[in-house]
Amino acid sequence: MSFPPPEDGIIRAQSGAQMSVDYIVDVGQPDGLGRAILDVRDQHTNRNGMLHGGIIAMLLDAACGFTASMRLGDGNALTPLVTVQLNVSFVSEAAVGRRVTATGHPSGGGRKIAHIYGELKDEEGRMLATATGVFRKITLRGEPT
Amino acid sequence: MSFPPPEDGIIRAQSGAQMSVDYIVDVGQPDGLGRAILDVRDQHTNRNGMLHGGIIAMLLDAACGFTASMRLGDGNALTPLVTVQLNVSFVSEAAVGRRVTATGHPSGGGRKIAHIYGELKDEEGRMLATATGVFRKITLRGEPT
Amino acid sequence: MSFPPPEDGIIRAQSGAQMSVDYIVDVGQPDGLGRAILDVRDQHTNRNGMLHGGIIAMLLDAACGFTASMRLGDGNALTPLVTVQLNVSFVSEAAVGRRVTATGHPSGGGRKIAHIYGELKDEEGRMLATATGVFRKITLRGEPT
Amino acid sequence: MSFPPPEDGIIRAQSGAQMSVDYIVDVGQPDGLGRAILDVRDQHTNRNGMLHGGIIAMLLDAACGFTASMRLGDGNALTPLVTVQLNVSFVSEAAVGRRVTATGHPSGGGRKIAHIYGELKDEEGRMLATATGVFRKITLRGEPT
Repeated sequence: MSFPPPEDGIIRAQSGAQMSVDYIVDVGQPDGLGRAILDVRDQHTNRNGMLHGGIIAMLLDAACGFTASMRLGDGNALTPLVTVQLNVSFVSEAAVGRRVTATGHPSGGGRKIAHIYGELKDEEGRMLATATGVFRKITLRGEPT
Repeated sequence: MSFPPPEDGIIRAQSGAQMSVDYIVDVGQPDGLGRAILDVRDQHTNRNGMLHGGIIAMLLDAACGFTASMRLGDGNALTPLVTVQLNVSFVSEAAVGRRVTATGHPSGGGRKIAHIYGELKDEEGRMLATATGVFRKITLRGEPT
Repeated sequence: MSFPPPEDGIIRAQSGAQMSVDYIVDVGQPDGLGRAILDVRDQHTNRNGMLHGGIIAMLLDAACGFTASMRLGDGNALTPLVTVQLNVSFVSEAAVGRRVTATGHPSGGGRKIAHIYGELKDEEGRMLATATGVFRKITLRGEPT
Repeated sequence: MSFPPPEDGIIRAQSGAQMSVDYIVDVGQPDGLGRAILDVRDQHTNRNGMLHGGIIAMLLDAACGFTASMRLGDGNALTPLVTVQLNVSFVSEAAVGRRVTATGHPSGGGRKIAHIYGELKDEEGRMLATATGVFRKITLRGEPT
């Protein structure tokens, strides 16, 4: 069930979590990097009123995961995979009203494993968080291999 | 603005993200460990239809963070802090319909920093993910120190 | 070239780094967990005169790696593998003169990947560091698969 | 006991571990980044005959740690600190005979905490490992604060 993403490269509601949290995935940029973009609202805040660490992890997981899909799927952004490990460093806080973008950069790997480095920044380019992730290509049940 | 949690130790809607994702925090158990509990529904799934890695990270961040709050706040589960780093290992997948529980266990630390080890398991005790986190006590603006 | 470890389960000089740093690996305990043991000496110190973070990482990598070998090799402690990712939390410092022991505990995984949680403690049981690691089974060149 | 590093910026034997493993630290480059450089020899190998993961962690810890010292010490590469957490992703293997260089890049932080991203590459620029680390400034006993 692998197929190319929409022509404009924007994925809006591919999963329940994405719909619920309401972030956008962009896999259509010429640099071949996956991105996850969120407008921070009240539903995304932690108990201090700032962007929740779990949402930060979700954005970095998405950006790094789609970058890994493109790398492991020879450009196919929808190649299925699982996250093996994700490490997030929380560098700075983000407030409601900000637009934040996570971007995944490939560090290396092989045919089945991808190492990705991710950065989350706000619209002024301020670093909010970094991440390293390991992703592994999988075959979904019922799918030709 | 530090104050004790409700008498039954259950925190239901302390943050926007908690309300939106709809997990429960339990800081009332006699072992003094923080827990985050979620009934996995469609709104929590990734693009493979399983519990999203970002939600897994959120539950572990919450469980470890509340454990850290109790440790750094001398039993006060609501002592404010920030997550410095959170590392999540994704051990096994969880399907819709499962009830999953993240629990934070203190590894050590000092007056301002807490090291916490977390585990996410389903209702049968199967390990879904582990995490290590570092948390730092903060003073919120306008609060007496 | 897979073969069982020595009868007493002690591996003393299996690699150049192990010989140079002079730690012992113990894979002969009835609990089936791998351990790495070091007597901290001047050659192991950082610029503050305490046990170096790199040596701490080495001990945790060894303990977790041998635990992973036993798990992925059906009890064979010498099954070859690579470390995919290792995350170390530095909880407390260790001084020259201490005997420290790292122990690896399996969290889960499949036929090729093992997730291991590690702890480094001194002879009084004080926690010095924790780690999570991901290890992947490999086939060495020239070896029958 | 804070003092500037030698004029050429090269630190050769500041700690027992550094002397034993025999890597060089370079804090004299105009980009202000810390580096750790090692010529891989038999004493640095793992049980597969490649550069040991623990040595890789040591080089990244050193490079990131000296970068953090310069950042937290206003350019003073010898400001004392401790590693709070270090996460290493092992991207590719390095053989005996290679010269490998770890470099630390600041991601952010405050007056006491620094977040650093590190890369380990060989002399051809091939990525061997990446790391994220958190470092905390400390005051050594007996030292004026």
